[in-house]
Amino acid sequence: MPDIDIVLVEPLYEGNVGFAARVMKNFGFASLVLTDPCELGDDAYARASHAGDVLENAEVTTLDEVFRRSHLTVATTGEVSKSVCTPMRMPYYTPAELRGMIADIDGRVSIIFGRENRGLENAEVRRCDLICTIPASPDYPILNLSHAVGIVCYELAHLPRGSYQLASREDMECLYRHIDHFLDLIGHQNFKRENTMILLRRLVSRTNLTSREVSTLHGLMRRTAWRIKK
Amino acid sequence: MPDIDIVLVEPLYEGNVGFAARVMKNFGFASLVLTDPCELGDDAYARASHAGDVLENAEVTTLDEVFRRSHLTVATTGEVSKSVCTPMRMPYYTPAELRGMIADIDGRVSIIFGRENRGLENAEVRRCDLICTIPASPDYPILNLSHAVGIVCYELAHLPRGSYQLASREDMECLYRHIDHFLDLIGHQNFKRENTMILLRRLVSRTNLTSREVSTLHGLMRRTAWRIKK
Repeated sequence: MPDIDIVLVEPLYEGNVGFAARVMKNFGFASLVLTDPCELGDDAYARASHAGDVLENAEVTTLDEVFRRSHLTVATTGEVSKSVCTPMRMPYYTPAELRGMIADIDGRVSIIFGRENRGLENAEVRRCDLICTIPASPDYPILNLSHAVGIVCYELAHLPRGSYQLASREDMECLYRHIDHFLDLIGHQNFKRENTMILLRRLVSRTNLTSREVSTLHGLMRRTAWRIKK
Repeated sequence: MPDIDIVLVEPLYEGNVGFAARVMKNFGFASLVLTDPCELGDDAYARASHAGDVLENAEVTTLDEVFRRSHLTVATTGEVSKSVCTPMRMPYYTPAELRGMIADIDGRVSIIFGRENRGLENAEVRRCDLICTIPASPDYPILNLSHAVGIVCYELAHLPRGSYQLASREDMECLYRHIDHFLDLIGHQNFKRENTMILLRRLVSRTNLTSREVSTLHGLMRRTAWRIKK
């Protein structure tokens, strides 16, 4: 992934800048760039919460400087052209598409967000290399600035869930054999057995059991068998 | 998709409730449910902005009622168990995985978000059917409530980008023929031609040209040819 700068153009409300810093840090981004920002006081730091460092280290500079040093600039916009004949804001990409497009770039990518009240001006959009738009409801497509930053950061980070170990193939076959014996024990009829086992295999398979869950199921069947035999 | 309720358990700050209402509406969700909420005053409505209707129609009820009427309940949590041996918050799914899991449900699904300061209690998580966790940076994994609501709504809505018409196959072949003629015109050498045409085809193909862009390129080559011949 490239180095990513989140650039807020002339943000008007310090609360939004604070929230933007927080959600950036939530997804592992640290480089916040501001052009001609509002004053950042207590409210900004309160909303940044444990991301005060991102706010503290925010760089205040000009949009000219951003364009000068970036390998790629991305304008985020809520308004999209209705026609391919207006190249200003077209074609546009979703944050997920953008992730794919910049994934292999070795360089500096600036994602540029406009003012809360009127977004980016045409003259600013014109200078950007790509347009990114978050698909939203036509009933109310305008996101709060910090929520837009959050969704773009979420998509670009695309953090792994982290993995948990599922039960092994062997564990699962052992579980199915145990279930089969258990059906014997409760007198489940043989002529139905194959279909019932298929049904149970389908049911169990779609739950993606962990090894802990498998051993709990073994335990419950053993305990039940013990009560039956007693 | 099922009917989706966004449930906020005992929210403490009206600003967060207002922002949650706004970002819900941004992604087409309208059903906001609150249990024992803080008072909702000017600040909530200011942050809801054009989603005052979502706030106005929010239902205040109990978590018991939510569990009673939901076909499926999903606990959202920032803390995940470290081991498969603690089934309380394990296994957990990302918002994107959750979308796939509930896509075909015909019924009511409640997505439950905890308090700003201490999330959901174990006793509440225990009653839920599924656990959903937004993958976040280990440095600061706790999202603001409204940002968490926003990312879950964004993923569940999964709104289409909307499409724009790319240039047709025919348009593209016509463009490549024009480029080939143009190379003749500027005296590009024949022995290099095949490789150069392949390079240009690769380059042009990955830009996914619109029909407008194709006709602008034709126009530029025609104009250049006219200047050369003059």
